[in-house]
Parts: sequence; structure tokens; C-alpha cells
Amino acid sequence: MSLAQEMFAVAPALGKANLSASQLKMLAGKARWIFRVGEAGFPTVPTIAITRAAWDALQSERARRDTRLRTHWVACLFKLVGKDGKPPLLVVRTSAAIHNGGLQPARVGIPAPAAPGDAVDPGRPLARAIKQAFESYGFPDAAWGNSRSDDDRARQIVLVQAVAEGEVEQFLTRNSITGVLGPAPLNGGAVPRLPDSVDALISLLDAKAGRHMACLVAIHRGQVKFLSARPVQATAAGELEAAVDRVNRKVWSPHNAVSRVDPNRLTQLLHPRLKSAEDATPIATGLGVSPGAASGIITFNAEDAARLRARGKHCILVVNETGPADIEGMKAATGILTARGGMTSHAGVIARITGKPCVAGVRTLSVDTTENVCRIGDREFRPGDRLTIDGSDGTVYLGTLPLAQPHIGGAIGTLLGWSDASRTIAVRTNAESLEAAATALSFGAEGVGLARSEHMFFSPERMVALRRMILSEDEEARRRAIHGLVDFQTGDYSALFGAMNGLPVNVRLFDPPLHEFLPRTDEEIEDTAASLGVAVRALRLRLERIAETNPMLGHRGVRLAITYPEILQMQIQAILAGARAASERQLAPVPVEIMVPFVSTASEVAWVRDHATTIIENSGLARSDRVKFSFGTMIELPRACLRAGEIAGMVDFLSFGTNDLTQTTFGISRDDAPTFLAAYQRKGIYERDPFVTIDEKGVGELIAIAIERGRAANPDLKIGICGEHAGDPTSLKFFSGLGIDYVSCSPYRVPVARLTLAQASG
Amino acid sequence: MSLAQEMFAVAPALGKANLSASQLKMLAGKARWIFRVGEAGFPTVPTIAITRAAWDALQSERARRDTRLRTHWVACLFKLVGKDGKPPLLVVRTSAAIHNGGLQPARVGIPAPAAPGDAVDPGRPLARAIKQAFESYGFPDAAWGNSRSDDDRARQIVLVQAVAEGEVEQFLTRNSITGVLGPAPLNGGAVPRLPDSVDALISLLDAKAGRHMACLVAIHRGQVKFLSARPVQATAAGELEAAVDRVNRKVWSPHNAVSRVDPNRLTQLLHPRLKSAEDATPIATGLGVSPGAASGIITFNAEDAARLRARGKHCILVVNETGPADIEGMKAATGILTARGGMTSHAGVIARITGKPCVAGVRTLSVDTTENVCRIGDREFRPGDRLTIDGSDGTVYLGTLPLAQPHIGGAIGTLLGWSDASRTIAVRTNAESLEAAATALSFGAEGVGLARSEHMFFSPERMVALRRMILSEDEEARRRAIHGLVDFQTGDYSALFGAMNGLPVNVRLFDPPLHEFLPRTDEEIEDTAASLGVAVRALRLRLERIAETNPMLGHRGVRLAITYPEILQMQIQAILAGARAASERQLAPVPVEIMVPFVSTASEVAWVRDHATTIIENSGLARSDRVKFSFGTMIELPRACLRAGEIAGMVDFLSFGTNDLTQTTFGISRDDAPTFLAAYQRKGIYERDPFVTIDEKGVGELIAIAIERGRAANPDLKIGICGEHAGDPTSLKFFSGLGIDYVSCSPYRVPVARLTLAQASG
Repeated sequence: MSLAQEMFAVAPALGKANLSASQLKMLAGKARWIFRVGEAGFPTVPTIAITRAAWDALQSERARRDTRLRTHWVACLFKLVGKDGKPPLLVVRTSAAIHNGGLQPARVGIPAPAAPGDAVDPGRPLARAIKQAFESYGFPDAAWGNSRSDDDRARQIVLVQAVAEGEVEQFLTRNSITGVLGPAPLNGGAVPRLPDSVDALISLLDAKAGRHMACLVAIHRGQVKFLSARPVQATAAGELEAAVDRVNRKVWSPHNAVSRVDPNRLTQLLHPRLKSAEDATPIATGLGVSPGAASGIITFNAEDAARLRARGKHCILVVNETGPADIEGMKAATGILTARGGMTSHAGVIARITGKPCVAGVRTLSVDTTENVCRIGDREFRPGDRLTIDGSDGTVYLGTLPLAQPHIGGAIGTLLGWSDASRTIAVRTNAESLEAAATALSFGAEGVGLARSEHMFFSPERMVALRRMILSEDEEARRRAIHGLVDFQTGDYSALFGAMNGLPVNVRLFDPPLHEFLPRTDEEIEDTAASLGVAVRALRLRLERIAETNPMLGHRGVRLAITYPEILQMQIQAILAGARAASERQLAPVPVEIMVPFVSTASEVAWVRDHATTIIENSGLARSDRVKFSFGTMIELPRACLRAGEIAGMVDFLSFGTNDLTQTTFGISRDDAPTFLAAYQRKGIYERDPFVTIDEKGVGELIAIAIERGRAANPDLKIGICGEHAGDPTSLKFFSGLGIDYVSCSPYRVPVARLTLAQASG
Repeated sequence: MSLAQEMFAVAPALGKANLSASQLKMLAGKARWIFRVGEAGFPTVPTIAITRAAWDALQSERARRDTRLRTHWVACLFKLVGKDGKPPLLVVRTSAAIHNGGLQPARVGIPAPAAPGDAVDPGRPLARAIKQAFESYGFPDAAWGNSRSDDDRARQIVLVQAVAEGEVEQFLTRNSITGVLGPAPLNGGAVPRLPDSVDALISLLDAKAGRHMACLVAIHRGQVKFLSARPVQATAAGELEAAVDRVNRKVWSPHNAVSRVDPNRLTQLLHPRLKSAEDATPIATGLGVSPGAASGIITFNAEDAARLRARGKHCILVVNETGPADIEGMKAATGILTARGGMTSHAGVIARITGKPCVAGVRTLSVDTTENVCRIGDREFRPGDRLTIDGSDGTVYLGTLPLAQPHIGGAIGTLLGWSDASRTIAVRTNAESLEAAATALSFGAEGVGLARSEHMFFSPERMVALRRMILSEDEEARRRAIHGLVDFQTGDYSALFGAMNGLPVNVRLFDPPLHEFLPRTDEEIEDTAASLGVAVRALRLRLERIAETNPMLGHRGVRLAITYPEILQMQIQAILAGARAASERQLAPVPVEIMVPFVSTASEVAWVRDHATTIIENSGLARSDRVKFSFGTMIELPRACLRAGEIAGMVDFLSFGTNDLTQTTFGISRDDAPTFLAAYQRKGIYERDPFVTIDEKGVGELIAIAIERGRAANPDLKIGICGEHAGDPTSLKFFSGLGIDYVSCSPYRVPVARLTLAQASG
């Protein structure tokens, strides 16, 4: 294309634009919308586009005293002159493909050049405005300079537009919050009074853009003339409602709607969020480990939290770190703030399960429970002071900020319903409580992909029983302690199987990393000693003896089942009894999946399978058609990935625990990572936090190897993903390419997974 | 072969045996030596062999009243009758391929059967003795029964031998301890008086067997007749001296000697060991984390240990676990015994470095320093009581047991010299102290493959400086603390480079896992606070704040260099200064390898390389031919193995840290593993401890992947192994098949690696 062709009328004052194919291709940003609206026959203010390449050529021609391009440019400008023959006042606008706050705002009321030379002379108003508009696009970054970005740059466009007569008005094509079609206020305020003819313009733009558009028109004697438009980010709810509305209006197919909604934005609909954080200054930042925002009164213990909740008050539980003793307090609190811990800390796990916003690992926070005071940096807070936390990005604010409650409406259900039509990978949930299971079912979960049996003991009464087992000194004491657990477990399983009513439930065998289940503070140790009926000194000795240096890599998972077979036996028996009870109450058979955690060798799988099978076969339930058992392993260690072929021959399914697999593949303790993760992202060592988005090149390759070897050995193998990555859209897209059968994520992420996997299959 | 052929004369009274090829193949154990000695023309007592299969057939034929086989058997027995035609008295012996204490001892003086029927009647003496001899081989274990072991069993042999006239004498072919050829006492005692003609027998047996043999002869009127022989296990020193002697006598080639010495036995030569543990009863067992035996007085602290050492007394330092404060005590002690910790615990690491025997993780041990008493099970011990520990197998004995000091002589040097001729993989050592470097050099180390720079701070004075750095609250404080470290480091590097005098030295950048370097007990915290000049309370707060949940996977290695670049800068400057100083003192140039630890992404390598290169280039030393720098990474995380292709393009070498790679691939904290590792081995989950012998199928595959991808990206890549597996013969054989360039092991393992790698290349 010649440089002359890069100066053209997007919307001439008279007639049609008649653009060449390459000119059409060049239309970016506002230029595109002006052309499209004009082409559709809507009155449009005359507009000329000039590319940076053409402008630079004009300027260098000027230096050489050549005038060929200038003649063409002036001829273009003449296309802004209407029937009356009078040169209009001009406006200069940028027309960026992606809106950018740093660009030069429209320069209005520039007189038309009096002579051809004025049209290119940067000393004159028009050329000066054009030059400055190009400059506002910025200069190429030498470090990142490459031929492609140079090329993009040459195509940057500046628009020269005739000033329209009448009032200039701005509005949105749809309401930002409700998504309703029709003129809506842009930045709060009122909707301008507009003639009815603007509705056609709005419908036209909405259909062409498929997004909320900010629109600029001139109204003169009841006539509307289009000036420009650019897409704007609406609220997640507004975008969702708009998408469904476009399908109802037959502008989009359901498939269009499914593929065009950003799954990341769905989560914003499912938790309260800050209305606007622009005016508020964060007083601290930590890790956002459970999304959503919460405001409330500071409290340092469970009793105060419960008392406040009973009085209908919101509170934020502020602690150095949480442990099982804090569960009730966490449930009572509106949000949780901790000084220590990361994504997989007790606080993070419980907060996500219970759907409570949580900010963890705020290094500047320290809580002094003896003085009943906490400090954040230099500030001191006492119970009754107020904080607001944003668990989505980890910020902490002073006082109470206004929050927006989830606005879902029927649109999310409609969209997810459409998404299910094209989805081929099942979406389950990680849940062990009835509340979590119910939430997940309401979000469309198709089963439980991970019931962490040890989480069923997160209540003070049960924790005593579990601690009794962990702390038992010999087999006899352990056997007695275990006996006390069977009834709890049987009831839990029966209820969970019943709640899922025929959908598969995957029970992971006990996997309690010791440090999460043992008392730590003096007070906890004293309480535990009292509840176990042992001397404090004896308990301390025992605790010291079983303390682990790296509990993440310690005596847990399958290692517990093999060293203490009585624990395995108790669990299998409780699962059997629970399945039997559920099967007697309901019509649908009970599909139970038994999953062995933290496996590194096929011999471990064989050992547990043999022991479990014997118990199941002795129960007689194996031959019942009311309960269907399957057996598999969690794959969460690099060695298990490599040996998946050997393991696959012995199991019905493999489910990848991507959290622990990321920890071991990278050699990073997620709880301890905050000390360097921020620096790593700042220095560009990690592009993305590997605990949020799956590391495709490392962890991802191990998963791919495991699937390939597993399926080669056992073509019927069912494959799932049950780590937190199963709720992350980018990770889900990667997983969907690996031929998996299901994912399992936290209840609040189920809608995200449904939508993402539909997009990935579509 | 017919069953009749399975009854034959190994050494007939008259003439030669003339065995068929299949009969020759059948000769196992004593039968083999009797045949060989007889065949060589040495007078031998007439002997018949019968296999279990033939014997069983004889017995079932007897039940059927068939006599064909019996006729052959009786004919065989007639071959024991010499020229005088008188049937001799008989001896029945077993003839096992592998000697086994449970076999029936020789039954002497059995009258020859009077009738053919007596020869197979278990009611008669000969047949009864044969029957019982077969029974003493044991019955096949049904669980392990398979066609191969059934086959082996059918070939089991019992010998029927004529009783020789004269005195029966027993002796060894070589001295068990010195390896000197010639008759030697078998179980202590004196050497029997033997005719000179026995020397020919000894030479014959030694050459044929290539092992120490226990020999049985009859001496009658100065004439020697050979009865039987079986191989015995001599001391490691005895075997080694014998191997070298065989080469000197031209019985073996040097290559034979190299390939026939078991490298595992070399380690026994390099540490004191128990003379005999047979009479002693262990009172406890833990993990043998540093080989060798030690006896001494129990002591609970460094001061007492130092005092005892000053008085020339041996002591055993008994503690719950060791930390940097115990270093002096460990150096002063003869051996170390701990209640907690495993192979990679502080105690284990320091013990191996200093060559001290150490038993760790004795679960029945508890030390109460306030009461100055320790308990092992029910027993109570106070300072002054005596213990003996065996760090090779983890046993603890009451009192003082006799120890054998290393007896090496020149043989080990000779053998290792021969081994170097066929070895293609270099052997370096893991060393940071001059003592360790000197030991390793004396054992033939060809460089330092791993100098753990953080270990250079294992002294009280330096530990204060290092702790000051770790505990610094901000960059300024850290910078001051670092400044205090440069001089120490410069001196250390200069000395180490000088000691290695031109051999390559690989310096690993700082990798201090926090828990190993911080004070833990109240006393240590008070001391540290005093030495740092801060309040105890402030130090406790700081310690609490930087405490890590899983320090193994925490803020260490390259993560420290990237988050605190000032530490990296200090280290590189110290290395530069050390190299410059060494290069000014010696003729040989100084080859320095800088190694980045705990890498999981190529971006980490790039970051450190860029920073290190800048500092080196600014120093001017990069262009000197007196110092040669190379740069590489330690590969000790699964992700680094997978991304080795990307990493290899930026480095000169990769060195595998197989300890941490095993920890992360299996998801096992080596320190915490003792709680389940024993049960895992007992239940057959692990065939071998993966921290002792490399796991070929998991960790090994990751290493193979890394080497393949690394070499594909960078054909000049140098590849080493620097984990503890580099001192384990089985692992070394595996590594040698991967195309590596060098291994690096602890000084005491250097001879083992030299010999093993020679065998693997040969």
C-alpha cells in the first residue's frame, strides 16, 4: 500500500468512504467505529484518518520541499467540507486499538489550514495537534523493540474530524451494572436527553462491538450525528447480563455468548467486593488467599467473633496465624486477617472452604493477645476498631469501605446452561461439609472430586479425638483413639453421599500434615493436655518427639496408612458404613471413589489397594449394585508422575493434586514463599505465580508425561485435576488440552470452570 | 541329563573323574574345589556327589521296588574304594554354593553300607545322614516358590567322602587380616604344623578361587590329602592385600584385581570399626549416618568433650539434636549420638565432614541437660558412663567394645593406582575445610566438586557474623553484616584454592536453610542476643517472624541471591579476592567454578549469571590467564531437570545434587523420614533406602532427562554428581552409564568412587 493511501476519509462529508481492503484492515479503535456507523447509514461527522507512517512521510517530504503527498493530504482534508463549501473547525483525536489513559485528549476547535503548507507545518495549529497526538502514543521501548512492534507503530492512527454543530453528549450503550440496553450514564450522573433515533445507533454499535461502548454524539435540532465510540469495561454483572440479552435479541448465538465472557470476571459476581478502592489508601498488603472483600470490627478471638455475629455485627478476625482452635471464630467472622501463612496455610484453606474473604501473610502485622492489641506497621489497633480487607488482592484498608453484594440474577445460570452444551470435561468440587456441597451443587457441580477426610475434624470436639489418635504412644492407644473416630466419619460420609444423591464422591484417605493438626501455643497445649487427660509436661515431650522439620514432606498421606494400618482400616469401614446408610435412604446408587494421597511408588498403591480391597470384599458391599466402588490415587509428587504407567495398572483413576506437585517440582513451600515470591515477580523471574496459574513447562510436562504413561498402561483410566489450579481459567485451558475427564475446584470456582471448559472445548 | 548322571565321583579313589560337561556345570561349593584340586593332581580324598533330585528319585524308586538307579548309586559308592579293596568309613558333607551356618555339619565315621539296600534306606546310617543333610538345606518357601528356585533346589548336592587316614587339619589359605599367602589360623588359635607340600595346594586354591579359602586336609605320615575347602570372608584389609599380592604373583592382571575388590568394603578400611559385635547386645538402634565405630565416655556438652579430649580420653557426645553451637563439641568428641535427625541433619552432615562416627535418630533416647542425665529405653546414663556406637549400622552398645583401627598399608594405594588406568570419570570431593581437602587429596581426589560456602561458618565466632546477616532487619543492617563476612570468606577461598593447587574448585553460592543456622534453645537464643547486642525479646520476635514451616523448601539457595543481591555481591568479591591471592602464591592457574544452588527456572540462572559476570568483568580478573572462571548450576529440583535444555545454554556445567532431588522427587524430608522408612523397608515398599542408593526409575530418569536435554542444547556441557549418592557403589554404576564427567563425594568416599568407576568403565 502506498503512503498516500494511508491518509483517507473514514467518513467523508459527502458520499461513501469506499475504502480499499488494506485501508479497511488498518481501521483501529475509534476509526473503526466511525466507519462502521457511517457505513450503516447513520449520520456521522466527517472524519479523516492518517497513519503515523504517512505523517512521518509528509514531514520528511516537507523537509525535501516535495509536495506530492501533501497534495493528497490536502485533498483528503477537503473531504471534510460539506455541501455548504465552508471549511469546518477541526478536532484532532487519537484512535488507539486499546484505550490508554496517557493519550492526548481530543483537541477541539482547531481552524482549518488556510494554505496547503499550513496543513503539514507543526508550527500551525492543525499539524501541531496531529504531531502531539502521535507523540502521546509514546516512543518504542528500545529493549523491547522488534520489527512487529515497529510495524504496529507505523500503523498508529490520528483522526481529524469536523467539529459538529449542536450539543455534544456522552453515554454508554448499556447500563454498566445491569447491562440493560439503551443510553446509560458514563461516569455516574444522569443520562442525557437524547432523541429516539439514538436507539438505532446503540443497537447498531452493541451488535457490531459486542461490548459496552462509550459513545459521543452531537445533537443539533433533534438530529443526532455520531462522533466517536470506544469500548469500556463494565461490571462483571453488566457484561454478563448484556451477553445473555444479545442472545435473546438474536444478535449472538448462545455459543457466541459463552465464548465471549471472561471466566475470570465471574468470580467477582460470587463474592462481595469493594465498590471502589480509588479513594482509599491501603495501610498494608499481604496475600489475597480467599477472594472477596469484608469490612468489620477487629476481634482477636473466637468468642468475641461469635458474640458480635450473634448481635448481627460484622467482624474481622485478626490473628498471627490460625489453627484448628480458630475454626469457630473463622466461621463467625466476616473476614480473616493473619500475620503469617500463605495460600495453603490453615487460614487460607478454611477461608476458601467457608467462602470467607481472607488476607494472609501481612508481614507488618503483629498481634499481641496478652495486651489485646495488634500493630500494623506503626499503627495500633484495639478490639472495636474497624478494618476492611480485600481478599482478592491482599490489601488492608483503614475503617469501613462500602461493599457491593453479589448481583447475579438469572443471567449467570442461563450462560452456564448454554456453556454445558459444548463442555466435554466434567466439573466437580472440593468439599467435605454439607454447606460446601450444597453451594457447589447450586453452582452446578457434577460430583465431589476431593473430600479431604481430615478436614471433617475441624471442630473443637472432633479435634480432640483426632489429636488423641495422632498423639497415641502405641498401637493399643491408637486403636482406642481410632475407635472414637469411626462414628463421626460414618455420619459424615453418609451425609455427604446423601447430599450428592447419586453423583460421584471422591474420598481422599487421611492426609493430616502434623503441623496443621497439633496444638502450638501454650494455651492450646494446656487445653489439649486437659482434654486428653495427660500431663502438660508429658504432652510437650510427646509433641517434641513427633515434631517434624519439614511437615510438608513428612509422615503423612499414604505413609500414615502403611505405618498405621489401623487408621486405614477405620476409614474404609467408615466409608463402607456411610455408603451403606446412604444407599438405604435413596434411590440412586452411591458411587464412591477411594483415593490414596501422597503416593510416590506403585508399591504403596498396591499395598493400600490390597488392604482396602480385603476389607471391602469382606463387607459384602462389593457385590451390591447399590454402591459402586472405584479406587485410585492422587498424583502430587514428581515421582508418581514418572511412574504413572506402573501405578495406572492398579487403579481406576488418577487425580492430580497440583498444589503439592507445584511445591515439590519447584522445591517451594507455599507457606514460606511470600518472603521471596514478591521479589521474584518484581524482578521478572516468574512471569506468573505458579501457585495461581499452572507452570506449563515444568509441572505441566510432568502431568502430561503421567497422563501419557497412565493411559498407555490403562486405556480406561479416568483422569482428574483437583488442585487449586482447577479453578484458574488459564490453567483450565491448558488442562483441557491434556485429555482429562474432570476437574474439581472449590465451590465458588465451579461456575468459572464450567465456563472456561466450555470455551476450551468449543 | 539323566538322574543317574547326577550321582558321580568328584574324586574317585582310582583314576580321574572324567566328568561330563553337564556334571562339571553342576559342581557347586565344596564339590567344585574337591574336583579342581584333584584334577590338578593333588592327592584328594575320594568323594561322591549326589544331587537332591537324584536322591529323591532313589527314594521313590525304592518305594516302587525298582533298583535301576540304586545299582548306579552303589556303583558310584564303589568308586570310593581304593586299591586295597576295603570299603572305607564314610563322611557326609553338604556342598552349598553359598556357605550357610544352618547346614548340617559333616557326619564322620559312617560305616559303608553292607548291602545295596542299605545304601538307600533312611533307617541305615549312610542314607540317614544323606537325608538329614538334604533336609538341612531347608524347604522351599511357598510364598517365594518359583520354577527357578525349584530348579536350584533340585541341584543341591550332598557329598559322600571316604574318611581319610591321619590327622585332619583346618587352616586358611591366607591370613585373614594381613592377606599374606600361606597357612593361617581359621578362628584365632595357632596355625597347625603342616608339611611343605601344602604350599602347592594353597597356591593352587588361591589362584583358582581368588579368595581366602578355609581348607580341610588330612595328614598321614607326612602326606597331605585334600578333604574340602570353602571360601571365607576375610577382613577388608586382608582381601585387599591378597588382591595386590595375586597381581604381584602374576596370578591376576591389575585389571582382575580392580574388578574383583568390592568397593563397599573399602570404607571399612577408612574408619575404625568394631572388632567383633557378636558377643555384644545392642541397647538401641538409630540411623548410621556417619560410618565407623567409637567407644567412649558419655558427655552432654562441648566443654566436657573438649576437657576429656585434652586429657586424651575418648568421649561420645550425646544430645537430643545438634546445632552450630555443638560444632566444637562434635570436633572434640570421638563419636556422636543423637535422639533426633536423619542423614541430612546437622549432626549427620558435620559428622561425615569431620569423619566422626555418628548414630542419629535414636527414638528411645532422651537427653535431659538440666538434670545431666540421658535415658535409652529404661536405662539411665550419667556423664562418665561408657557407650560404644557403630555409625555404619546405627547400633548402640553398652560399655567399651574393642575397636580395630584402619590398617591400610600400601595395597589400597596400589589398587587405586591401577584403577585410575581404566577410569574415565573424574572423582572430586565435597570439602570446604583445609583438613577435609587434605584428606581427600591423600585419597586421590581430583578437585573439589562441592564447597558449601555456608559451611565455612561452622565456628562460634563466624556463626555470630552469619547470624547477624540472616537476622538483619533491613538492607543497611544486612550490608554491614555482610561486610563483616568478606574477610573470612576471602581467606577461606584463598586457602582452599591454594590447597588444591591447580585442581578445579567448585564453590557453591550460599545455601543456608534457615533452621540449620538459627539459635533454637533458650540458652542459644540468649547467647546469640548477647553476641548481636540485641534484646532477647527482640531476637525472639525476629526469629518468630522469619521462622519457616518447611525450611527445606524455603528461602534458600538462589532465592537468597536474588532477593538479597548484596549477599551475592559479597560472595563473588570474596571468591575473586581469594582466587587472586591464591594465583599470586602458586605457579598453576586457579580454576574456579561458581555454582548456583536450588535453581528451578532458567530465569534464575540468567539473573545470577548476569550479576556475577558484571562483577567478575569489572574486576579485571576475567581476562587473566592466572584464574579461570566457569559458571554453572546445581540441579536438585525436578523442574530444573525438565528445563535443563533451557538452563544448559547459559552455563558451563550442571552438577546434580541428588540428596535434595531425591527429597523433592519422592516428597520426603530426609530428616523426618525415620518415622516411616523402617516400616517401609520392613513391608517391602522400598527395596532400598533411596537416600543411600539412587532411585533409578524416578530420580534416575529425571537425571537422564536433564543430561539428554542439557547436552542437546550445549554439547560442551560438563556434568557432575555431587550428592551423597556419589559415594555409593550401586549408584555410581548407574551414573557411569549416563555419560557424566565427574562425581564428587565426601573425602572418605573418594577411594570407593575411584574403584567403582574403574570397574564400571572397565
